[in-house]
Amino acid sequence: MTTAVLAGGVGAAKFLAGLVLAVEPASVTAIVNVADDTILHGLHISPDLDTVTYTLAGAVNPETGWGLAGESWQAMEQLARLGGDPWFRLGDRDLGTHLYRTGRLVDGATLSEVTAEIATGMGLACRLLPATDDSLRTMVTLASGEEVDFQTYFVARQHADEVASIRFDGWPAAGAAPGVLDAIRTAEVVVIAPSNPVVSIGPLLAVDGIEGAVVEARDRVVAISPIVAGAALKGPADRLLQQLGHEPTVVGVARLYAPLCSTLVIDEADADLAGAVETEGVRCVVTDTIMRSPEVSAALARTVLAAGAAGAGDRAPEA
Amino acid sequence: MTTAVLAGGVGAAKFLAGLVLAVEPASVTAIVNVADDTILHGLHISPDLDTVTYTLAGAVNPETGWGLAGESWQAMEQLARLGGDPWFRLGDRDLGTHLYRTGRLVDGATLSEVTAEIATGMGLACRLLPATDDSLRTMVTLASGEEVDFQTYFVARQHADEVASIRFDGWPAAGAAPGVLDAIRTAEVVVIAPSNPVVSIGPLLAVDGIEGAVVEARDRVVAISPIVAGAALKGPADRLLQQLGHEPTVVGVARLYAPLCSTLVIDEADADLAGAVETEGVRCVVTDTIMRSPEVSAALARTVLAAGAAGAGDRAPEA
Repeated sequence: MTTAVLAGGVGAAKFLAGLVLAVEPASVTAIVNVADDTILHGLHISPDLDTVTYTLAGAVNPETGWGLAGESWQAMEQLARLGGDPWFRLGDRDLGTHLYRTGRLVDGATLSEVTAEIATGMGLACRLLPATDDSLRTMVTLASGEEVDFQTYFVARQHADEVASIRFDGWPAAGAAPGVLDAIRTAEVVVIAPSNPVVSIGPLLAVDGIEGAVVEARDRVVAISPIVAGAALKGPADRLLQQLGHEPTVVGVARLYAPLCSTLVIDEADADLAGAVETEGVRCVVTDTIMRSPEVSAALARTVLAAGAAGAGDRAPEA
Repeated sequence: MTTAVLAGGVGAAKFLAGLVLAVEPASVTAIVNVADDTILHGLHISPDLDTVTYTLAGAVNPETGWGLAGESWQAMEQLARLGGDPWFRLGDRDLGTHLYRTGRLVDGATLSEVTAEIATGMGLACRLLPATDDSLRTMVTLASGEEVDFQTYFVARQHADEVASIRFDGWPAAGAAPGVLDAIRTAEVVVIAPSNPVVSIGPLLAVDGIEGAVVEARDRVVAISPIVAGAALKGPADRLLQQLGHEPTVVGVARLYAPLCSTLVIDEADADLAGAVETEGVRCVVTDTIMRSPEVSAALARTVLAAGAAGAGDRAPEA
C-alpha cells in the first residue's frame, strides 16, 4: 500500500518510524515541512527534515526526539568562547549534516536532491521530500506586534510569547518540490501526521498545489490529532491554536482539517469527543496515539492505513 | 619596541609565539595573509589567521602546527557518511571558529572586526590584522594549464603539481585593512616572517599600499629566510621558488627580498652563503632559525629586533 505523509518534526518522525515497520518502507513518501528552515552561521538548517531522517535512521537522540544520539558539543563550546551565542545548539555530528547540505546547495543542488542524498547516506529506505525547493519561511507576529522568524519564536524564546498571527514568507510563489503532488495524487492513503496544524501542516498546505491535491484526495486522507486531552504532547500547538482563535481540542482539529481529510484519528483519552468530532463532518477513529515506542507507532500506522483504505473504499463504488 | 610582522601560517605563527615572549605582546601587530582563505560548505575559512591565533593562544595542535589540540572529528565523519568529501579536514572545535566568523560576516562585520573578536576570545594580547578586508585569492596555474584555487593546490593535491604561475584574484582592487599601513609605517621594526615568499608574503605585498609601505620602511625591515639549506622547513616554498624561476636558496630569497628589507636573517646551516647574500644588497645575519620551541623562537626574535634596530640606527644619522 503506497502512502504519502504530510510531516512536521518529532511527532511525524515517530509516526513514520512506525509506518515503515507496518508497510514496505519503499512504499512510503514523507513530505516534510521546510518552513522552519533557517540559515545560521551561513549554514542551511532543516530541522524537520533532520528530525525525520535521524529518527528513521535510528540515530535520533532518544531524550529529546531531535538531534543525534551520542552527540558532542565542541563547536558550540568554541563558538561561545569567542563570544558567539549558541542559542541554537548545533551538535558536532549534526554539523556534518548541515555542512553537507550547505555545500551541496552552494554547488547548485536543489533541497530535494540533497535531502535524497542525506536520506540515502543515513540508510533510509523510504522516500523523503521537502515540501518545496523554494524559500518558504514561517514568520510569527507576536501579540507585542513584533514579527520574528520561527526559530526565534520557537527556540530562542521557547514559544513563550503570545502569538497574534502567522504568515509564510515566500507564499504564494513557493511551488511543490518534484514528486510531491504526484505522491499525494497516487498514494492509496494520505496521512496528515500528528504535527502542529498551524506551523507544521499549515506551511505544507501553503505550498502551491499541495492543499488542492489533498482536498482532491480527501476520501483517502486520514489525519492524526496532535492534540490529546486538550494539550499538545510536545510544543506549543495547543496554545497556538487557542491564540489564533481555534479550539485546542480534537474537535477544533476536526473543524480545521474537515476540508482536507475524511477521517480523524484521536486518542483514547478523547473517546468521549468522538461524536463531536464526527459532527464536524469527518469519521472519527479512536486509538492509542501516544507513541511511546516504534511498536505503538506501528499499531497506530496500521489503524490509520485501515481507516484510509476504508475511506477510499467508500468512494470506490461511486467511481 | 613596536613591531609589525608580515605573516603567513605555521612558520610565522612560531616566530610570533617567540616574539611575544621577547617583547610586550601589545607592541606586536601581525599582518596576516588571507589569500589562502576559502569558502567551504558555506563557511569562511581563514587558515593563516587561525594558525596564528591558535598558536599564540597556546591552543594549536603541536603535531601539525595548525588546527586545535584535543580536536575531535565528528562533523567530518558525518559528512563522509553522507557522501561528502572531507578533503579539507575541519575539526569540531575548529568549526566553532568558522561558524563564529561566518555568522559575523553574514551580519555585516568586516574580517578585521571578526579577527579582533576571535583574537580577544582566544586571549591574545597582541594585535592581529588580516592584510585586507577585501576578497583576494591566490590562484595557481599548474604546468598542465589548469588553474586551481590555493587550497585545491595545497591541500587537495598536496602541492604535488608543478606550478606555471601564480596570480591574486582581487588584485589590484584589494585595499589594506584598517591599521595595516599605519602599523608598517610606525613600527620600529618590520619583520617579514619565515613564510612562503610566493604564496604567503606575495599576496600580502599584492594588497594595495603594502609593498610601498614596506619599501619605504626598508631600513628597518628584517626578513627571515624560510629556506634553510636549500629546502623549505614545511610546505612547497623551495619547489615553488624553483618552478617560478627563482633560486631556492637563501641567496634567491635575498634577491627577491632585497627591494623590501635591509637585513636577511639566515640559518646557521647556510652560514657559508652569508657573503653571497650580502652581494644581493642586504645585510646578512646568521643565527638558529629552526624554531623547535618558543624559547628558540624568542631568541630568534631578539636577534631579528636587534638587526632591525641597527638598520633603523644606520638610517638615523642620515635623517
